[in-house]
Amino acid sequence: MKINDIHYKSLWEEIENNQIIIKAIDQRLLPFRFEIATIRTSNEMIDAIKDMLVRGAPLIGIAGAYGIVLALQEVINNKVKTQDEFFEVVNNIKTARPTAINLSWAVDKIMRCIDSFGKITDVYNKAIEIARKIYNDEISACEKIAKNGYELIRDLYQAKQRPINILTHCNAGWLATVDWGTALAPIFYANRQGIPLHIWVDETRPRNQGTRLTAFELLGENIPHTIITDNAGGLLMQTGKVDAVIVGADRVTKKGDVCNKIGTYLKALAAKNHNIPFWVAFPTSTIDRNIDNYLEVPIEIRSEDEINYIEGIDEHGNIRKIRVTPLNAHCLNYSFDITPADFITSYITEKGAFKNILEII
Amino acid sequence: MKINDIHYKSLWEEIENNQIIIKAIDQRLLPFRFEIATIRTSNEMIDAIKDMLVRGAPLIGIAGAYGIVLALQEVINNKVKTQDEFFEVVNNIKTARPTAINLSWAVDKIMRCIDSFGKITDVYNKAIEIARKIYNDEISACEKIAKNGYELIRDLYQAKQRPINILTHCNAGWLATVDWGTALAPIFYANRQGIPLHIWVDETRPRNQGTRLTAFELLGENIPHTIITDNAGGLLMQTGKVDAVIVGADRVTKKGDVCNKIGTYLKALAAKNHNIPFWVAFPTSTIDRNIDNYLEVPIEIRSEDEINYIEGIDEHGNIRKIRVTPLNAHCLNYSFDITPADFITSYITEKGAFKNILEII
Repeated sequence: MKINDIHYKSLWEEIENNQIIIKAIDQRLLPFRFEIATIRTSNEMIDAIKDMLVRGAPLIGIAGAYGIVLALQEVINNKVKTQDEFFEVVNNIKTARPTAINLSWAVDKIMRCIDSFGKITDVYNKAIEIARKIYNDEISACEKIAKNGYELIRDLYQAKQRPINILTHCNAGWLATVDWGTALAPIFYANRQGIPLHIWVDETRPRNQGTRLTAFELLGENIPHTIITDNAGGLLMQTGKVDAVIVGADRVTKKGDVCNKIGTYLKALAAKNHNIPFWVAFPTSTIDRNIDNYLEVPIEIRSEDEINYIEGIDEHGNIRKIRVTPLNAHCLNYSFDITPADFITSYITEKGAFKNILEII
Repeated sequence: MKINDIHYKSLWEEIENNQIIIKAIDQRLLPFRFEIATIRTSNEMIDAIKDMLVRGAPLIGIAGAYGIVLALQEVINNKVKTQDEFFEVVNNIKTARPTAINLSWAVDKIMRCIDSFGKITDVYNKAIEIARKIYNDEISACEKIAKNGYELIRDLYQAKQRPINILTHCNAGWLATVDWGTALAPIFYANRQGIPLHIWVDETRPRNQGTRLTAFELLGENIPHTIITDNAGGLLMQTGKVDAVIVGADRVTKKGDVCNKIGTYLKALAAKNHNIPFWVAFPTSTIDRNIDNYLEVPIEIRSEDEINYIEGIDEHGNIRKIRVTPLNAHCLNYSFDITPADFITSYITEKGAFKNILEII
């Protein structure tokens, strides 16, 4: 999608001195600064995932896949010397963040394919092939999500014949994937089809991905939108100002319960109470077929300093962090919550939009 | 209540050169700086209410009452010269903020009593008498709210025999009143009675009154607490970590619908879905007997810069504002929402705790 009228992807491969390196938009600096980061080693990739230089469930899956490619490159270059050392790196990639299933899905997918090979250059080439396939499949899945979700928006527009107000939480845009996005993909597509839209953007505390990334993406595509606090959605739904809610997913259980950014569940409660469609958009690689009870989904607890401190730009345009809590405060920073299946109106995937998860799995 | 072991009130009268002046804790600077502001004129009082130097529904009622006292003092001192000018000031006080009923309630109460008097010094003295009565009644009402709400907490403790986890939104503590508070009053009282408590403090975007004021008040009274994002309450309730929710109110309709800080309704939806008691604490002066349908309650829209900018302290300990949204972003800042009566388990007032508003009015 576009930034200042130039089409970017969130992450891509390049070659430097005959080695694969990864370029990625540094999402920690947006919207204040646009910088492309270079990731040359598996450890740099692990840090990029942990520090959220790359973030978003689908994108960290791809980052994880390329982390394995970089680790194998290090084996070839004799920087990773033993099998134990290699598997330690693999494990560190896989566990760099705990909640999104996509990371372990992508790492496992590569590892399954390369297990049976012996010669390291073959293994390396196979890993590159699979990473590229995951990358391209991701783009193609998101484009299908865009089209499948667009149909739901188009139906709403045909019924209402006025701009459609859609609320979204966090960032499940193209920056969270490679291109198109998940929750924002149908919005981008509907906008290009000429459907008039207005998007309510939850700021999404504590990291403000809504304010910083979703608003930034919508500005790039010229889509009308308004940033609101995470608290505002209830009132907006109560007063008829929301036609649909659309969010992404970090993990979907086989019963259709959706793990997504903390606060999603509160919006689902309000949407249900006001009979507003609540749509979840994700590639089917997000489905975790191993979890029965949603209480088993590991919920990441991130540093309390994400609540204690906030980042923005000062009067000189410099990025600066300030402390917003009392000095001796205690905070707790759960990053995800679960929206049970009965709150969800449609699952929008690359395979279509479905009312029930059982139609997909 | 206490700050560093000294008992303060949020606002009080003093005499300076034979004139009444008002001292108030400047709540805009907390928790980073503790400063007492001096308010000498009715215009300074209007600004103090508008800028939220004083805030909280009960406190702005008292501030409004003292605003009238200051305006009458200006009539005596010939600084307000005509009746028209005086009534313009009265109107400016009354409309300094739109949502909390307490402001117009207190102003109307004074104005009703002074209308029939002729001599300006008599009018002035009568106004002082009524302002002081409102002030003292407020403290006494909050103390009764403390005791009435305490009984609910005590019952929960007797049933559960472990620390009671209470979630609160915004600041309805002693800083929002004169002393004790409304939503926090039962918590302060229960703590002093030895009931073990842990308070979940919603940060309460955009002005972060939870982070800045509620956490500050709980620190002052040594009550265990944890700051969370406004997004977290749903997960906490889903996973059994909340025993009760308690909030204040800016306006309560005669049907028992509660207007309170934006985001309250989302917590009420979650509490209801998980059968968690949802308590609202307020003095009965908060009840608006004129409103039938909650959609008639005027919802204040504050400046979008409350979302664009955030205040905290920098690495040198200086209070500083930074911008957190993209430079060309649009925000909308609704400040209140409505929680309909059927979400509310108990109305805690100075007259007792009731299941139904009809038992009070």
